[in-house]
Amino acid sequence: MPKSEIGNPAPLRSGDDSPAPLRSGDDSPAPLRSGDYRPQSAIIRVGILTVSDRSAAGERPDLSGPALAQAVTERLAGAEVVIAEVVPDERAAIGAWLVRAADELRLDLALTTGGTGFAPRDITPEATRAVIERDAPGLAEAMRAASLRVTPHAMLSRAVAGIRGRTLIVNLPGSPKGAVENLATILPVLPHAVELLREAPEAEKHHGVTKDE
Amino acid sequence: MPKSEIGNPAPLRSGDDSPAPLRSGDDSPAPLRSGDYRPQSAIIRVGILTVSDRSAAGERPDLSGPALAQAVTERLAGAEVVIAEVVPDERAAIGAWLVRAADELRLDLALTTGGTGFAPRDITPEATRAVIERDAPGLAEAMRAASLRVTPHAMLSRAVAGIRGRTLIVNLPGSPKGAVENLATILPVLPHAVELLREAPEAEKHHGVTKDE
Amino acid sequence: MPKSEIGNPAPLRSGDDSPAPLRSGDDSPAPLRSGDYRPQSAIIRVGILTVSDRSAAGERPDLSGPALAQAVTERLAGAEVVIAEVVPDERAAIGAWLVRAADELRLDLALTTGGTGFAPRDITPEATRAVIERDAPGLAEAMRAASLRVTPHAMLSRAVAGIRGRTLIVNLPGSPKGAVENLATILPVLPHAVELLREAPEAEKHHGVTKDE
Repeated sequence: MPKSEIGNPAPLRSGDDSPAPLRSGDDSPAPLRSGDYRPQSAIIRVGILTVSDRSAAGERPDLSGPALAQAVTERLAGAEVVIAEVVPDERAAIGAWLVRAADELRLDLALTTGGTGFAPRDITPEATRAVIERDAPGLAEAMRAASLRVTPHAMLSRAVAGIRGRTLIVNLPGSPKGAVENLATILPVLPHAVELLREAPEAEKHHGVTKDE
Repeated sequence: MPKSEIGNPAPLRSGDDSPAPLRSGDDSPAPLRSGDYRPQSAIIRVGILTVSDRSAAGERPDLSGPALAQAVTERLAGAEVVIAEVVPDERAAIGAWLVRAADELRLDLALTTGGTGFAPRDITPEATRAVIERDAPGLAEAMRAASLRVTPHAMLSRAVAGIRGRTLIVNLPGSPKGAVENLATILPVLPHAVELLREAPEAEKHHGVTKDE
Repeated sequence: MPKSEIGNPAPLRSGDDSPAPLRSGDDSPAPLRSGDYRPQSAIIRVGILTVSDRSAAGERPDLSGPALAQAVTERLAGAEVVIAEVVPDERAAIGAWLVRAADELRLDLALTTGGTGFAPRDITPEATRAVIERDAPGLAEAMRAASLRVTPHAMLSRAVAGIRGRTLIVNLPGSPKGAVENLATILPVLPHAVELLREAPEAEKHHGVTKDE
């Protein structure tokens, strides 16, 4: 599992070859209310897994992992990428990494990029589903719905999102642009998601309206 | 399992602290055709389960159950709330209630409120999935898509909908406002859903165009 | 399993009793870029399964299978309907047909019509889920989202899409109109989906940007 160069991520590609940006038209989600972006008291610990046979074999540079690392660092307040690795499209390798991310590293957020499509080797969603304890379908649905406004090929994303322990796991597409765009869709809700996941199990009985609001 | 005060539900909150209403803009679902709201010949029997550690412990009044009871009674023609109870966020308790609702009480519709989020104790979707026989993902998707136009936090709903026997089970959010808003999204199709579930298994061979149209 | 009359399909009904067409408004998916409809080098082999107790018993003509066969032939470049059959709403019969379609006939695309609703006999999604190896939820979500703009009853579709081996399996509604409309939603991405499914497992290491772009 070669480490990605976290300290020197590939620059986000801008403008030139991008598809139309997500429109901010009538059917966009409502803007966040002021206060929803409140900074977290603790660091949000993030791990990134690039799933690619070619990158794992050193045949192709991993551009998606570094692009995600940069996007997370720049756009998610308090986030710190503590691990970024590359594995081939092997179910066991993906599953083992996710289990380690949740059970040993106790990450807040584990992002994968790659292996979510229709090619015979694309197995990231199945590897993810095998290790999550609680499904979070709303994140995957929202990412696909947003991407569908850019390209009909968004229908072919088989990405899964779910929770293992206190760790939120989210599959993202394999291309740097697709991965960052999908991340952008869920970025506004990640601080609150992490905050809820960190809640003490017994806290529910005592906290206020946060949860049920 | 303390009973909710069905006879004296909390009034639906109106106006003041509401988010923007669901817009009736270009991307709204098509309006129902005349005739779709046809009254059912028989009563629609509804059960409501509030899932909340604090309400089950008597530490917080259950506002969501009564709000749902009122909404169902006022807005779903022929509906009668025959049971409304409160359980803690315990998988076994939720599952047992749903099984009783379907197998013993033979309800047409079992609504849950609470326990669908990301907090460690939120386990209602898993308890539901364990007892349903047939998944009804379109209802959960439609509720999340409608809520997403109000707030991006709708992505964090993990609600499940499905069928056990002749009973439709639908998870709703924990807040009174969220529960009633989500219910409103699926309300137009509930009469037809109940009608189909009541169909005699052998009826398919003899009924007309209703099912396949 | 009576064969449908593939050579003489029922004409697609037009205009008169149709609901409002899918609007091409602001929230429509982005148009395909030029080149996405590139013809495939090989034929796309399609199978169609009509799931209906009444049609299987000869009590009602199968209109949906022929309507789908015509739509596939006319609108999917290179497609050839190689088999079209009718089975009753029996889980085992549906599952066996899908397994044969994938494992023996090695179809590119297996379409089912019927049995996706709430009636007690509607079991096509469960029969499908039992035989697919990889879920393709984006196709089902996109079909329901598009149908939801026509009628709220789209919420009641329980259709599943997924992959077994190299075969894409997609559940469609039981009515001829609903089946063809849902097919139209996913038609633009089917050539690329088939192309990806045909990829040699070892190809990922050598192909270019196609997959990850």
